[in-house]
Amino acid sequence: MWNEIGKKAKQAAKALAQSSNQQRISAVCRMADRLECNSAMLMVANGQDLQNARKNGMSEAMIDRLRLTSERIAQMANGLRELAEAPDPMNRVLMEETMPNGLLISKVSVPLGVIAVIYESRPNVTADAAGLCLRAGNACILRGGREAQNSNEFIAGVLRAALSEAGLPEDGVQLLYDPDREGVKALLRMRDYVDLLIPRGGKGLIDFVTQNAIVPVLQTGEGVCHIYVDKDADLMMAADIIYNAKVSRPSVCNACECMLIHQDVAEKALPLIHERLKQAGVIVRADQETLKWVPDAQAADETDWGKEYLSLIIASRVVDDLDEAIEHISRYGTLHSEAIITENPQTAKAFLDRVDAAAVYHNASTRFTDGGEFGFGAEIGISTQKLHARGPVGLNELTSYRYQIRGEGQTR
Amino acid sequence: MWNEIGKKAKQAAKALAQSSNQQRISAVCRMADRLECNSAMLMVANGQDLQNARKNGMSEAMIDRLRLTSERIAQMANGLRELAEAPDPMNRVLMEETMPNGLLISKVSVPLGVIAVIYESRPNVTADAAGLCLRAGNACILRGGREAQNSNEFIAGVLRAALSEAGLPEDGVQLLYDPDREGVKALLRMRDYVDLLIPRGGKGLIDFVTQNAIVPVLQTGEGVCHIYVDKDADLMMAADIIYNAKVSRPSVCNACECMLIHQDVAEKALPLIHERLKQAGVIVRADQETLKWVPDAQAADETDWGKEYLSLIIASRVVDDLDEAIEHISRYGTLHSEAIITENPQTAKAFLDRVDAAAVYHNASTRFTDGGEFGFGAEIGISTQKLHARGPVGLNELTSYRYQIRGEGQTR
Repeated sequence: MWNEIGKKAKQAAKALAQSSNQQRISAVCRMADRLECNSAMLMVANGQDLQNARKNGMSEAMIDRLRLTSERIAQMANGLRELAEAPDPMNRVLMEETMPNGLLISKVSVPLGVIAVIYESRPNVTADAAGLCLRAGNACILRGGREAQNSNEFIAGVLRAALSEAGLPEDGVQLLYDPDREGVKALLRMRDYVDLLIPRGGKGLIDFVTQNAIVPVLQTGEGVCHIYVDKDADLMMAADIIYNAKVSRPSVCNACECMLIHQDVAEKALPLIHERLKQAGVIVRADQETLKWVPDAQAADETDWGKEYLSLIIASRVVDDLDEAIEHISRYGTLHSEAIITENPQTAKAFLDRVDAAAVYHNASTRFTDGGEFGFGAEIGISTQKLHARGPVGLNELTSYRYQIRGEGQTR
Repeated sequence: MWNEIGKKAKQAAKALAQSSNQQRISAVCRMADRLECNSAMLMVANGQDLQNARKNGMSEAMIDRLRLTSERIAQMANGLRELAEAPDPMNRVLMEETMPNGLLISKVSVPLGVIAVIYESRPNVTADAAGLCLRAGNACILRGGREAQNSNEFIAGVLRAALSEAGLPEDGVQLLYDPDREGVKALLRMRDYVDLLIPRGGKGLIDFVTQNAIVPVLQTGEGVCHIYVDKDADLMMAADIIYNAKVSRPSVCNACECMLIHQDVAEKALPLIHERLKQAGVIVRADQETLKWVPDAQAADETDWGKEYLSLIIASRVVDDLDEAIEHISRYGTLHSEAIITENPQTAKAFLDRVDAAAVYHNASTRFTDGGEFGFGAEIGISTQKLHARGPVGLNELTSYRYQIRGEGQTR
């Protein structure tokens, strides 16, 4: 049964790989229009999910993630319309060269094929992920959170109808229904059909997937991001950036979870930064040295390093020097986003060259690690692995390539 | 114990990521020189392997793969010297852009980290793989065939000494000794230390690795390549190309394993092609239609389609048209290299656009799928997967990238 889904996806992927840019643009536009036209019915389906959630005692924060409003539906639709305006990720010529023997070698972008996406509660991911996969010419198999099943089924139905209307196979979007996770387990092993599996969600989901999948996985999401305040930092800038990176949206993966302060400036920097953070009610989990200058902080323990709080809590540690800061990041970071604040260009260069992460910043907030901010448009997640794609995974990162070689009878 | 090897590799990878281009050039040059200087002792170590192989009744063909001669050692050394001359794969600026908010975003190539390579009998792979990994700034863990253990240990010792001499950590190259495959099994699960695992060898090895690994894998090697002779083909060219693709080196993955002949030209093309192939003693495994025009061919059965003969045997099938040819390739191909012979540009375009493989050829031999022929220099294998790298995997494909972002205090 699950293999049947894989087979259908592979078949649809073949057709999508041959589709024209115009057809894919038309499909995402129709998806957007149909979502808005069916807004009222979608909210009814979503209402069932909300009702079930309340029955099951789901927290208000989780219920809010699950909720669709007409505004949120309009956002979904506009996200799809933006994809329509993006340049075609397929058929880009990445390299072209005539070899000495006369062969013309072209490296051309092509779809990956079948992309499976496993995600949690928010139903808008259904439209976002399907739109991104489709715009890049891929078929997708979606497995959303069970708590959003009614909403997801409605959305998937709308998207499939739009595909069909645009002359594309409706199996380009398939939604998995597997209340007991059997489908997820099958996806993890479907090497014949799944070209890429993307888990979107918390650490538990991502660990489960990476520990069990034998299909290629794109690891996304977990972000334990640090900001290191160097001895040569502009301390006002440091306070601004740390405040922004922690407070502007604490629940996202590019938020700052830990600040590392050079010992020479701890006395001045920490009270200044703490003053700012206090305004937003941020709790500081502090090492012994930090506590000297921020006596009303909470004492940190070993479990605070490397913790993704995703809330208004920040860890703080005083370090001897750049080396100790980099050592800390290397040990506790998740290869996501790391920043240094300094006016010293040599120190900045050392940090940018030595810290291994998808994005390394000098004098800027870690919050910029985002497809939109990088000019890529929408993204399906932030990759924290080194293979294939690193950092924001946008349309171009959802493609592979093929070499096309034109000759006149050459042999070797 | 195996984790210890992973830890050491990770530690070495950190140092290598910070090494200068000059240091890595110096290391590969020293590797080359030391291999040649120690040629006699290496042949003694190799002699032990050969003696054991004979005792164990290894076939002469396998013994030949295992054998090192002074000429083969010189080839290994020269391969390393060519790597020294290649442009630095690290620190390439892949993209650089100043965003409207003033942030300067640079995408810069960086090493992948730790690369594990599992390979079979030929001991020269030890030097080739280590050289490629090191030149791109990666540490490697090598697991060669047990039958070459003495040769591999000697070579690895030489390479480690050269690293040390160049001021780099000798754990940049580690050779695994695991007669009972426990080390291989550990490598497959070492997500904390192994950034990429490359199996090099036969289908059995590659299937075992892809079915069991939870670390990222680069699937290489299996090549069931087809050549389709279209109704508008220049038949002399078709015969030349098929002869070349089958006969020039039948044991390699880019050799042709099956020809597909358009029904309209079967009568003329098949006797012509067969005449050429017969000169080299090639056996044709033929479908019923082929047999009509090549009566002395052997009758093929279902197992012939998709078979990687790696010898002077070729399958042959007459197809109705381009669609049937593409359908056959899609079903039996391995996403490696596929070719069409035709004088019709529309048909050629359709084939190049529709056939999904790492390399698709118009009027040229599949034998060109090779790092050297593509102008990449040495390669570690031909990728038959779509993620990360496709086709020849050279130095640039052994890197990842990092975004370095420079600001003046920007917040979001």
